[in-house]
Amino acid sequence: MGRTLIHGAVVVPVLDDSYHKEGYLIIEGTRIAEVGAGTYAGSTDGFDTVIDAKGKLAMPGLINTHGHASMTLLRGYADDLPLQQWLEERCWPIEAKMTDEDIYWGAQLAILEMLKGGTTTFTDMFYFMDRVAQAVEESGIRAVLSRGMVGFDPENGQKLKEQAVQFVQDWHGKADGRVNVMFGPHAEYTCPKHYLVQAAQVATEYKRPIQIHLSETVKEVQDCIERYGKTPVALFEEVGLFNNPTIVAHAVHVTDEDIAILKKYDVRIAHNPDSNLKLGSGVAPALKFLEAGLTVGLGTDGAASNNNLDMFEELRMAAMLHKGVNIDPVAINAFTAVQMATNNGAKALFLEDTLGTLQAGALADIILLDIEQPHFYPKRHNMIAHLAYSSNSHDVTDVFVNGKQLVKDRQVLTMDEKRVYAEIESICERLYAE
Amino acid sequence: MGRTLIHGAVVVPVLDDSYHKEGYLIIEGTRIAEVGAGTYAGSTDGFDTVIDAKGKLAMPGLINTHGHASMTLLRGYADDLPLQQWLEERCWPIEAKMTDEDIYWGAQLAILEMLKGGTTTFTDMFYFMDRVAQAVEESGIRAVLSRGMVGFDPENGQKLKEQAVQFVQDWHGKADGRVNVMFGPHAEYTCPKHYLVQAAQVATEYKRPIQIHLSETVKEVQDCIERYGKTPVALFEEVGLFNNPTIVAHAVHVTDEDIAILKKYDVRIAHNPDSNLKLGSGVAPALKFLEAGLTVGLGTDGAASNNNLDMFEELRMAAMLHKGVNIDPVAINAFTAVQMATNNGAKALFLEDTLGTLQAGALADIILLDIEQPHFYPKRHNMIAHLAYSSNSHDVTDVFVNGKQLVKDRQVLTMDEKRVYAEIESICERLYAE
Ligand SMILES: [Zn+2]
Ligand SMILES: [Zn+2]
Repeated sequence: MGRTLIHGAVVVPVLDDSYHKEGYLIIEGTRIAEVGAGTYAGSTDGFDTVIDAKGKLAMPGLINTHGHASMTLLRGYADDLPLQQWLEERCWPIEAKMTDEDIYWGAQLAILEMLKGGTTTFTDMFYFMDRVAQAVEESGIRAVLSRGMVGFDPENGQKLKEQAVQFVQDWHGKADGRVNVMFGPHAEYTCPKHYLVQAAQVATEYKRPIQIHLSETVKEVQDCIERYGKTPVALFEEVGLFNNPTIVAHAVHVTDEDIAILKKYDVRIAHNPDSNLKLGSGVAPALKFLEAGLTVGLGTDGAASNNNLDMFEELRMAAMLHKGVNIDPVAINAFTAVQMATNNGAKALFLEDTLGTLQAGALADIILLDIEQPHFYPKRHNMIAHLAYSSNSHDVTDVFVNGKQLVKDRQVLTMDEKRVYAEIESICERLYAE
Repeated sequence: MGRTLIHGAVVVPVLDDSYHKEGYLIIEGTRIAEVGAGTYAGSTDGFDTVIDAKGKLAMPGLINTHGHASMTLLRGYADDLPLQQWLEERCWPIEAKMTDEDIYWGAQLAILEMLKGGTTTFTDMFYFMDRVAQAVEESGIRAVLSRGMVGFDPENGQKLKEQAVQFVQDWHGKADGRVNVMFGPHAEYTCPKHYLVQAAQVATEYKRPIQIHLSETVKEVQDCIERYGKTPVALFEEVGLFNNPTIVAHAVHVTDEDIAILKKYDVRIAHNPDSNLKLGSGVAPALKFLEAGLTVGLGTDGAASNNNLDMFEELRMAAMLHKGVNIDPVAINAFTAVQMATNNGAKALFLEDTLGTLQAGALADIILLDIEQPHFYPKRHNMIAHLAYSSNSHDVTDVFVNGKQLVKDRQVLTMDEKRVYAEIESICERLYAE
């Protein structure tokens, strides 16, 4: 069991809005053993690694609560288009061509980007998920993964349900506990009512939470009301989905009644402000969610609708956007936004209570940022404000997940960056051949 | 006259939405002599500097059309507060204590951040502007500077007007043409009507454009209507301000009649999406501006309301925000946003027509980005989409202004970074002493 000392850094535990102007962290095995304020005064004997982190800031790794990792293969291919054209003419035809090998390399590109940008846990709902899990296992990142379930066609729906169960059995808790599996019925508009019932039942049977897209666009809500006479939220309640721990992605177009239902079942929300803006979906009522006491995490969504996987941008957007659209300069303050990107993200994913914080006993998912840069000066005022309003994913220099260093001086130790780029270019050569 | 060859890069001229997957640039003196597509086939004799820019992207430097550079000294000091409290309890008391030396170092910090982030021209309206101009001259950046004019008190108003004239005479066109001076009456709410008349007259007399804050908040517009029975835009027309070339900052709360007036006088707009969001001011109707054919540039505003000076974030925000709030996924496409951050920014500031583009004859303000990073893959689709939706100020590795290299491998050659930080910390020690 390795022991690591990180000392001399600004330490932001994200337990409350205070932080240590100087502090230290001790990692033992996969966990944080101690977080202290001030200069480390103990002996450095007995540590396998001692990191002098002067000029750095230590904080919990960021937690991305919604996405589709392998859609990195579509980055830059489908922009500035109407939603239907984006989906039907761009995303679907390419996705239909993707092999399991493509999915694997697409996920690697996503993981490479996320690790470099300080994300230590990501969420994925896609297909060929064994290969995504493989990429997670090899890279050392933590993830919440789901085999996406779509129920248009009964036979295919049954097959996907079986694959989803198999995926839980094969992968949940694997890779030293870094792989977590949920059930992932895709959305109301891709899952008929009876199929949602089945998804709810299988999640209950296998005791895993559910992730699902919800009320992303006006049209989705209108169509659902036309179909069933109720909103997607009310439908999900009716079919028993919310009897399982559930995280919903987007929730852009929800009524006050919807929010009351979400609160009743303590449904968690993955807020994807950038994706919702870029696709012209709108702005989710995140202020109302917070007022209702709902747990809100942040997500990037896939790279076809963002187009990066930069959780610092989501954090910043969450802290800025709701002030502007609500004409309220005190809406979602810096600390709340940082929480949404860290510990509240962990809660939204039903992960351990201490994940996303720096405290003794928590999983050692830690990032270091270079704060010897102009946008962190002056340093005396408020480093948490700097994190929310001024910092940037490229500030991240070092990343630890499960106690293991994965990124050192901006280099990912566990991945072959050049190989990933070469594979991506060659895959795209084939996918986008005329 | 130095000659520089930059070859092997992706070259984005920002003339139309095409770009060279491989191209080269030749700089002669302060200007671009040639931009070519493909591999450079000529001799490298006769160049003082040859830069192999394989794995880089070359584009025009970004143009920041609104800000208050020395407010970097307030970064992180005044966040998550109601607007009046932000201004009256935080900004004003500290600004009142700032000496000319503070302004100089605050501007240095701002310039350091902007240069590293790919901004080659910035705009400033503040006081002790001689010291800002000095920082511009020394650092090598390009700037549009104004002595802010406030007319509450007639005697002080007269003094500021004289200082503004003196500043034009002392600095306009200096530092090899890198310093441009405008007149800067602050805003309607700080300049009584007769003072606006004087500002308009002095700008006409000295043949310099005007920059002014306009309709940033609902309250500002309401107060003006109460005072004069008309909007700030209508008032500015009445007092003759718009008879001068004028750039207005913000224009968040403007009517269709206001927009028609702005169009009539071809008034330029500095759109500051981040600052408007963070202060809870709202979202400017940028789509309407573009539909009306107005010239729109982007600005960061000061670091107390942003909190960084990152033009890539403004570019990205401009491309994302208006899609979301207008529920329109094709609003402000990637190329339009890139134009707003480059050439249209130059036009908004009444600078040379070719500034903000890469073409023969244009001023050689050029930046290089490292595109051997995950968020630029796959590369085959659309580099302009990557610039708008996926890139980041920290991608910038090299910056040239007026043909001179100011940033090399992320190091600012013309400034002492550590000295700037030390001065900032010591100044803040004094400014924020209890
Ligand atoms: Zn999604
Ligand atoms: Zn301003």
